[in-house]
Amino acid sequence: MTPFTSRSRDSVAALGEEKLIAAIRRWLGLASPPAPYGIGDDCAVLPRSRARQLLTVDPIVFGRHFDARVSPRAAGEKLLKRNLSDIAAMGGRPTAAVISLLLDARVSRHWLEQFYRGLAAAARRYAVPIVGGDVGQAEHVVAATLTLLGETTAGRALTRTGARRGDWICVTGQLGGSLRSGHHHRFVPRLREGSWLAKQRDVRAMMDLSDGLAKDLPALTPTGTTAALDPNAVPRRRGSDLRAALGDGEDYELLFAFSGRADIKAFRQRWRKAFPQTRLSCLGRFVALNARPADAIHLEDYRGYEHLRR
Amino acid sequence: MTPFTSRSRDSVAALGEEKLIAAIRRWLGLASPPAPYGIGDDCAVLPRSRARQLLTVDPIVFGRHFDARVSPRAAGEKLLKRNLSDIAAMGGRPTAAVISLLLDARVSRHWLEQFYRGLAAAARRYAVPIVGGDVGQAEHVVAATLTLLGETTAGRALTRTGARRGDWICVTGQLGGSLRSGHHHRFVPRLREGSWLAKQRDVRAMMDLSDGLAKDLPALTPTGTTAALDPNAVPRRRGSDLRAALGDGEDYELLFAFSGRADIKAFRQRWRKAFPQTRLSCLGRFVALNARPADAIHLEDYRGYEHLRR
Repeated sequence: MTPFTSRSRDSVAALGEEKLIAAIRRWLGLASPPAPYGIGDDCAVLPRSRARQLLTVDPIVFGRHFDARVSPRAAGEKLLKRNLSDIAAMGGRPTAAVISLLLDARVSRHWLEQFYRGLAAAARRYAVPIVGGDVGQAEHVVAATLTLLGETTAGRALTRTGARRGDWICVTGQLGGSLRSGHHHRFVPRLREGSWLAKQRDVRAMMDLSDGLAKDLPALTPTGTTAALDPNAVPRRRGSDLRAALGDGEDYELLFAFSGRADIKAFRQRWRKAFPQTRLSCLGRFVALNARPADAIHLEDYRGYEHLRR
Repeated sequence: MTPFTSRSRDSVAALGEEKLIAAIRRWLGLASPPAPYGIGDDCAVLPRSRARQLLTVDPIVFGRHFDARVSPRAAGEKLLKRNLSDIAAMGGRPTAAVISLLLDARVSRHWLEQFYRGLAAAARRYAVPIVGGDVGQAEHVVAATLTLLGETTAGRALTRTGARRGDWICVTGQLGGSLRSGHHHRFVPRLREGSWLAKQRDVRAMMDLSDGLAKDLPALTPTGTTAALDPNAVPRRRGSDLRAALGDGEDYELLFAFSGRADIKAFRQRWRKAFPQTRLSCLGRFVALNARPADAIHLEDYRGYEHLRR
């Protein structure tokens, strides 16, 4: 469904700002608490928290992160879930979100309503209050930026730094074919898994996969090492070859390093018990630069998704 | 200065994402702390705080909030200051910011560098670390959305709710002519004043002026009352008539209600001592609906700035 309408009385511009904001609050419903906690004052005033705070921001843009084949509800859900995946990657839980929209005047009210209802449904499902926002006009564009605040759940935030030589490289779920399969908007952010992993002391570093394993893994790789990945261990979505699994991007799975000195077999058993529905794959280890086996994957040969290129 | 370049090798697209992000971190310099507090991980990990948290978001869009007459440095400063004004309006202080950019591929590197250097300068001046961000591509658009986290400084957040019949209506600074005079990007957000006002128990409600007094004041006005404003008391910027002062918008001044039972004269003396450089005007009071004097301003006759209209 295209966001644009050719009938000007169905457009957001015909509503005017005051009515539009009233409509947005109605569409968000219980997903937005009363002011000053929620929408309606200069800032949202949030409850106090003793935990360490997490902050992340990600947009979705029409023509880039979704198109007319994606329903507006699914686009609204995707916007929140992309950001939830970043909170999951640190083992956190979400606490509040604010959203800023840039809309061409010809965007249809109906499209926008469905977008907000999708966002609200996801916000209720993941218990994230939408506490503030802004709507502005910009020609030729339909874009929404969501900023998500969260907090740690395990006494620590699991960062990208901390892996060592010898550590196992593990990944949740399946990789590749995200756009083709609709996974890019249907995925479930790995919040429960991320929080559980942050509580396992032998998990040393973690990130989420957004640009594809080949492009993302270097951020987790300790200096002086390289990843020795078994090509047969990479979990591929049905219809995806190795190149797709390593390079397609938008997997929104968790990639983490598990201590090479700990008992990986016992860890995998605990995982299966905690998450019987979520596949866990150990792809290989970080090894010294000159110690990569000949049959391991040459990640350099697989380019991830590169933004801002034409 | 226009953000666009016609020479494709000077464009952000020619850089590619990795080099662009490295350049942004260089341009931000000390305004962005090392990861995971700053840019470089899935989320920013923030220091703990015992104070109540404040959260606000506002964008700037080329062609709306700035144009080629505004330097990229000033645009970057304005982006942060607009949001600081919202934190000031609750009596808070800023703690961290994240920024999301949407850029046409033809935006020039030089323009973007100056924009970030302006943002970084303002971030250092107001001691707000830039802890995360995102850069995405979108055709025909140059837009930046900044989300600002803050905390209360006075044990309370001063909201828009709380004014009563009989309360004084006061405003800082001068109103009107913001675009013409350049005030819309040169203004200094009223952080010190806002924090001081939040500590005065007789200040009952506060907001910042962004859409013009005529449009903004109703949000502060208690039910069953109306504002009785003396037209001669409205502080006008040089060259602005009453209509401009009430309707132009982008004043970024503080509007607040002061208890009608408290000593306004003593309060104004304390103000002059604390802020000898900042004008304070008391424009009138909230009165019963049928008690507005004939010579008071009819706010309904002055429309503020309306977004999303063509």
